[in-house]
Amino acid sequence: MKRTDFGDMPCPIAQALERVGEWWSILILRDALAGYSRFDDFQRSLGIAPNTLSRRLSALVEAGLLERHQYSERPPRDEYRLTASGRDFLPVLWTLMEWSNKHFAPDGPAVRLVDRQSKEEVTPLLIDGKTGLPLTPQRHEVVAGPAAPPGLHQRLAELKERKRRANDTTPDPVSKKPASRRKSK
Amino acid sequence: MKRTDFGDMPCPIAQALERVGEWWSILILRDALAGYSRFDDFQRSLGIAPNTLSRRLSALVEAGLLERHQYSERPPRDEYRLTASGRDFLPVLWTLMEWSNKHFAPDGPAVRLVDRQSKEEVTPLLIDGKTGLPLTPQRHEVVAGPAAPPGLHQRLAELKERKRRANDTTPDPVSKKPASRRKSK
Repeated sequence: MKRTDFGDMPCPIAQALERVGEWWSILILRDALAGYSRFDDFQRSLGIAPNTLSRRLSALVEAGLLERHQYSERPPRDEYRLTASGRDFLPVLWTLMEWSNKHFAPDGPAVRLVDRQSKEEVTPLLIDGKTGLPLTPQRHEVVAGPAAPPGLHQRLAELKERKRRANDTTPDPVSKKPASRRKSK
Repeated sequence: MKRTDFGDMPCPIAQALERVGEWWSILILRDALAGYSRFDDFQRSLGIAPNTLSRRLSALVEAGLLERHQYSERPPRDEYRLTASGRDFLPVLWTLMEWSNKHFAPDGPAVRLVDRQSKEEVTPLLIDGKTGLPLTPQRHEVVAGPAAPPGLHQRLAELKERKRRANDTTPDPVSKKPASRRKSK
């Protein structure tokens, strides 16, 4: 069964998933970022069927995240090197790792991210590079960008109105709005 | 065809993908984090087949990221609310959005993340909360954690040796190692 194409959706999350959202793709990028580049390395690392690996590598090349380079002429053999956009995927992986270690590692994490020099475990934190403030849904919000189609403007307005109504009826522990702004039912 | 189960892999990325790696799952979480909670809302937002949506919602409930709550008795209707681990997925989404906007939005982004007060666009940056330093592969590394199985120790050692050899033969623009440490071929 052909999966739905996310490529026509304007949302950047959908655009990202169109490139890396297939089963296995993110683990292949993980391995490439860890230093693997050859078909056999990926296959051994992942225990993936060769035809599936072959399809996924081609899709990642087509998405511009990996590049094929021939490292042997006889027999002809390619390796797969990360492009700039492929290398830039690392913060996504690290954020995913942090989330997973926090919630799905009851016996402690299998791998941890440390400072190379101090060997201290890091505490990944996503901040706004301009203000230095942690990114939070209380302080930050998603708004329409220059390439937003009309439908997206509508959708964001609908979600904002929905949240406003929810805040009107539910006590919001985070909101700093005075209680008098809440309508009585 | 049954997909390979990532649940037995110790890697936290595999553990995360076992929970959110199915096609559609991350877009459903995106919508839940944006404020949707009902089946019809998800369906309208995503244009997803009802049986697929139903399966994905059940999987996200089983993974502990969403919780079912009945909001109507007649007819019986459930809504899906984010759990703490579901809400914690937000930094992953934002990092993914930043990556996508940077590389796959040639005409500018469709949505942007802004500071609610100043309306200024944010520049997401992943730092080590302890030291305040940006997380980079030059300064930070992944090491075995307390729950690492023996195979993972081996694998990390192999990757480290591989990188060491690559650095010995390839000029590394970032490394601060003196050139004299590079072996001649």
